Amino acid sequence: MNNIKYFLDQVSAIFDAEQFDAEPHELYAPIDYTLRLGGKRIRPTMLLAANALFGGDERQVRDAALGIETFHNFTLLHDDLMDRSPLRRGQPTVYTKWDENTAVLSGDTMFALAWRFFLRQPSPRLQEILQCFNETAIEVCEGQQKDMNFERLGLANVSIDDYLDMIRQKTAVLLAGALKIGALYANAPASETERLYTFGIHLGLAFQMQDDLLDGYGDTAVFGKKTGQDIRDNKISFLPLTALKKATEEHKKELLALFASKDNMDEEEKVHRVLALYETLNLKNTIEKSIADEFETARKKLDEIHADEASKTPLRELMETLNGRKM
Amino acid sequence: MNNIKYFLDQVSAIFDAEQFDAEPHELYAPIDYTLRLGGKRIRPTMLLAANALFGGDERQVRDAALGIETFHNFTLLHDDLMDRSPLRRGQPTVYTKWDENTAVLSGDTMFALAWRFFLRQPSPRLQEILQCFNETAIEVCEGQQKDMNFERLGLANVSIDDYLDMIRQKTAVLLAGALKIGALYANAPASETERLYTFGIHLGLAFQMQDDLLDGYGDTAVFGKKTGQDIRDNKISFLPLTALKKATEEHKKELLALFASKDNMDEEEKVHRVLALYETLNLKNTIEKSIADEFETARKKLDEIHADEASKTPLRELMETLNGRKM
Repeated sequence: MNNIKYFLDQVSAIFDAEQFDAEPHELYAPIDYTLRLGGKRIRPTMLLAANALFGGDERQVRDAALGIETFHNFTLLHDDLMDRSPLRRGQPTVYTKWDENTAVLSGDTMFALAWRFFLRQPSPRLQEILQCFNETAIEVCEGQQKDMNFERLGLANVSIDDYLDMIRQKTAVLLAGALKIGALYANAPASETERLYTFGIHLGLAFQMQDDLLDGYGDTAVFGKKTGQDIRDNKISFLPLTALKKATEEHKKELLALFASKDNMDEEEKVHRVLALYETLNLKNTIEKSIADEFETARKKLDEIHADEASKTPLRELMETLNGRKM
Repeated sequence: MNNIKYFLDQVSAIFDAEQFDAEPHELYAPIDYTLRLGGKRIRPTMLLAANALFGGDERQVRDAALGIETFHNFTLLHDDLMDRSPLRRGQPTVYTKWDENTAVLSGDTMFALAWRFFLRQPSPRLQEILQCFNETAIEVCEGQQKDMNFERLGLANVSIDDYLDMIRQKTAVLLAGALKIGALYANAPASETERLYTFGIHLGLAFQMQDDLLDGYGDTAVFGKKTGQDIRDNKISFLPLTALKKATEEHKKELLALFASKDNMDEEEKVHRVLALYETLNLKNTIEKSIADEFETARKKLDEIHADEASKTPLRELMETLNGRKM
């Protein structure tokens, strides 16, 4: 039986075999750069594993694997432009390495390239597959808008439910969509594609909540990001929202004041004070409990899927790896 | 028999019946604003007329009409951002009315909405239709990149062939693609969809060349743009490129110097000197001859199409209207 390493290697091979540069070079060089930066490529890996779960033909989903990852990278490219993020995967983002217009147009072209990949492969369920992909794409855009809205609204005006709805759209639906698309190519029945989709949603929520946790408590050397960057950026995440819920009125006031501060406070002092407040609230344990619950819900959904147990192994491995967050 | 007015009215009715605003409002309000600004909506009108030309069912192409126009407006939205154009159809562009991030994300979402429209309608030739749409989209992006490259290259380093290749991709393929898609829904044979596509390419080239001409010689009151704006912007178009080809070495030098000037010359003085040079070269006549030739080529292609003569009337009317440029 295959393991998750097998599918990760397949995805690498698929990307290595593909040509992304073309003319005009000014348009395609940033696309080639972005798609060659690598990253974990979890989404196409999940798509392949979901296809195998229902006995699909791997050759049939190579293009969908390219398509889903190209789309994901398009969203990162435009998000980095909108968020003015200078680095991605430790390398300069497209808008800093080239310029803003290049980021806009190369991103647009990547979205169209994602479609080109999807449209290369015929399938009796093509319309359904493409609708799943496109509705996912729309939700990702909506999620990004909600995330940008939060910044304007401020911490006091965002609820945990608002936040979960946002990360569901911005992060979870694309994992869920990748799984469903893989299963659709294998002609899985609707009951199973829906279970797989729900599994992907919970996995995605857990994944994002963990990402939020790592910002406050991650090992910089392992995680590759500076601890507390969300705090420096006044970024609304699962951490301050959960802290607000647990806090006394006094602590609540303090946290809101800290998250409303701009340039009037030393950054490291601010990170220190927020983390101290989290410590007082025993926040790490609470968040870890929420993440564990979310992973457990995902695990149960995977159990419910009617498929060969051995075929579930790669997705189980992926889930446990994400849980331990070694990838 | 229907005339072009009928199809223009149909397109208006299709847009009036559609709901574009949704949640989150911050994302969809600019989309609704853009799609309600109207404009000529030539592309969906051509799509409907092409479908009728081969006896298609009009109800089958309503969504494609929405899709092609939504895509076109997405490209305008992002082009206006990249070109920093403050006005479109006499109204503030999205990036000025809202902001740059809104323009990026609402544009991305419009591209996905275009796909949603296309994917709503089943067709036995869906894969072919969507491939035609998507390859067109990729060419439009490539054309926009080439246009941006020209600015960097400068007038002396762009040939007329480069320019025609650029406007073919940036403008003509979308008219051609709209026609072909309309015909594909009517299940027209490949020979005819290709003839129609070629008709659209020549029509598009003529249309853009005329747009270039109107910048230098248009009646501001009719055309709605200030005469000579391309000259003020040092914008490379069919006019200076044709002028260069006709010019003596001395005139060539003068024109290149004028198009290389930045803020060191009074704008109106510059427009005046360029137009005087065009006059010396008898440029207007030369350009009008080129445009007439291009319309004639288009006309011949339309003649060659095997379809009911009466059904060609709307497309002929559209062509002659564009030729007279009353729309």
